[in-house]
Amino acid sequence: MDNFDFYSPTYFVFGKARQHETGKYAKQYGATKVLLHYGKGSVIKSGLLEQVKKSLDDAGIAYAELGGVEPNPKADIVYEGIELVRKEKVDFIIAVGGGSAIDSAKAIAIGALYDGDFWDFYVKRIVVEKAVPIGVVLTIAAAGSEGSPSSVITKDGNKRSLMFGSDLVRPKFAVLNPELPATLPPYQVACGGTDIMAHLLERYFTNTKNVETTDRMIEALLLTMIEELPKVVKNPADYESMANVMWAGSLAHNNVVGVGRSQDWASHRIEHELSALYGIAHGAGLAVVFPAWMKYTYEHDVERFARLAKNVWGIENGDKKEMALKAIQSFKDFWSSIGMPTTFEQINGKKEDIPFLAKNVTYTNAGDTVGGFVPLKEDDVVKIYGLMSNDK
Amino acid sequence: MDNFDFYSPTYFVFGKARQHETGKYAKQYGATKVLLHYGKGSVIKSGLLEQVKKSLDDAGIAYAELGGVEPNPKADIVYEGIELVRKEKVDFIIAVGGGSAIDSAKAIAIGALYDGDFWDFYVKRIVVEKAVPIGVVLTIAAAGSEGSPSSVITKDGNKRSLMFGSDLVRPKFAVLNPELPATLPPYQVACGGTDIMAHLLERYFTNTKNVETTDRMIEALLLTMIEELPKVVKNPADYESMANVMWAGSLAHNNVVGVGRSQDWASHRIEHELSALYGIAHGAGLAVVFPAWMKYTYEHDVERFARLAKNVWGIENGDKKEMALKAIQSFKDFWSSIGMPTTFEQINGKKEDIPFLAKNVTYTNAGDTVGGFVPLKEDDVVKIYGLMSNDK
Repeated sequence: MDNFDFYSPTYFVFGKARQHETGKYAKQYGATKVLLHYGKGSVIKSGLLEQVKKSLDDAGIAYAELGGVEPNPKADIVYEGIELVRKEKVDFIIAVGGGSAIDSAKAIAIGALYDGDFWDFYVKRIVVEKAVPIGVVLTIAAAGSEGSPSSVITKDGNKRSLMFGSDLVRPKFAVLNPELPATLPPYQVACGGTDIMAHLLERYFTNTKNVETTDRMIEALLLTMIEELPKVVKNPADYESMANVMWAGSLAHNNVVGVGRSQDWASHRIEHELSALYGIAHGAGLAVVFPAWMKYTYEHDVERFARLAKNVWGIENGDKKEMALKAIQSFKDFWSSIGMPTTFEQINGKKEDIPFLAKNVTYTNAGDTVGGFVPLKEDDVVKIYGLMSNDK
Repeated sequence: MDNFDFYSPTYFVFGKARQHETGKYAKQYGATKVLLHYGKGSVIKSGLLEQVKKSLDDAGIAYAELGGVEPNPKADIVYEGIELVRKEKVDFIIAVGGGSAIDSAKAIAIGALYDGDFWDFYVKRIVVEKAVPIGVVLTIAAAGSEGSPSSVITKDGNKRSLMFGSDLVRPKFAVLNPELPATLPPYQVACGGTDIMAHLLERYFTNTKNVETTDRMIEALLLTMIEELPKVVKNPADYESMANVMWAGSLAHNNVVGVGRSQDWASHRIEHELSALYGIAHGAGLAVVFPAWMKYTYEHDVERFARLAKNVWGIENGDKKEMALKAIQSFKDFWSSIGMPTTFEQINGKKEDIPFLAKNVTYTNAGDTVGGFVPLKEDDVVKIYGLMSNDK
């Protein structure tokens, strides 16, 4: 096991009706003027935004508003938010929504207290020294951003999505009410669940030896997702299953199951370019990327794939290689069964885009490779995009 | 799943040689004058205390010292610590040791800022409003107190051990170096590991339905302990296995795997009286108590015991009742195999003490029962003590 630091100070407020406590927690964390940051209107239609506003009113906290965050959140609205925070003297940001609203809030939080361009933190990996504190009212189990230190933003001009991370943007509190996703389209629930599984897999594929504790915990959360995700895709109002998926989603990404081990994250990079270019949901892209990535890399550590096959899919027959291939097929079948695309064609990918996509994937990294499990160069990434096709 | 709050703000500093960073973290959390609180001298002999002092010196932090904490820590030294904190104007307490030093530090932390007797918090369950902040340098994987909000103290006069809990005493930081337990006697390592397993079992036995996420995580940590604990009992210097046990120990008790579900905790109450009366190690007592408690309660929910049998021990044959009984025997055999006592006779228990023990177990609770899974009255507890005997 590698040396590590682990710090997850987010206060989780979990359960039925708990969005009504938002004001109480904002006050506890020192908010006097809040920026409410949200998406394209579903939180208005559902009445959630009004409930949150009322709880802020009750706590005597003023607020400004900035709606309109899109999936794969864009830099434009971040700039708008930064201006608003400064103008309105906002001292606390509350994201009401999913990963996009939260990631956008994190970008605003660091940008508002920085003299230069917030994009510097994403491109140049400048160390964050201060941030406006953040709270979350979560509406979908997916990104895990409610407990994580990271944020992904897409800059439209060049279609590039980049990530930054700092413990300073871990939300102070996160309200998780599994009733809230009840009205989501099943497809969106499936995308969110696939993202959760991908967060687990990125951590599972490690070159660090002797990490039984985290191996077992990741397997536990994958088993949970395989059991519970199909139920909430079938019926997003299944409270009990949604509660399990939602808690698994936070634990999958606050890194409690990923400490002390190298992680991979190439698939996320490979996917982000698909979302940026084709506008597909991040989770849907991951269902396309991961089986291809696994096929390309499994021979690097067949043992690890065979362990995954046995402990998660109950595959015990065949040699290690056969077990590995069966596990990969099991993930692909599972994602298909919950309505995810699993091929390049299903997301209307064009083969002629592959060189551009692959170039962007490897462009922004310090070295010329991506991925901690198997370091991939541009031509490896080209081959992985190729493996996403129907005929592979 | 039940509604819950989860808050675990402890900063974990994990890995080789990390005790040398103690001063850095103490400074980061605002310490200017520290109370170093420790046990009976092993931290002196090993050189650890000197290393911690040097790191405080390097960070420009002054310190006072209070050694002498005993296993099952006593109220006497807590009073001494409270006086010292006030006299020396201590603003940060660092426990160097295991659960006893940490639990004692927590008691001092709340007592020093309270006008009345600290014991009030344990007896009357008064809500804690302030506490001196605490840090930890952990020397044994066991109690999980380094990430937990609870503390158990024994008051000698009446041989009673009581618990209190508050998020305000969760340590600000905890240094976990798996090298430090390398010189411990294997018996002590086994006791610590048994305590970790007991923390998992107390959370596993729930009456809350649909808690797949936490069920799976508890099973994952039990599987880890069954795999790794025998290795560290055989060789406490096995760094990799100790690292797994140590991280499992913190996760077993910071409640990340126990939220949203009723828990039991009768076995801990039943054990604490054994430790208080006979002076045995807490972990050793738990290996005696748990099989007896399981035998007494398994018919309350045979399904749950059968699930445990299957997912943790791989027991698939027989009806649910047979599976449950095999699981109970598996725990007993496992603890025997690592040198734990599993009967009342092995800890020199006297049958004539049982009425006194049982009376103390049920005495301090609001109602007249203990245990969330099966509420036990005094006569139930008498029967459980009876089931600990060789001939049962």
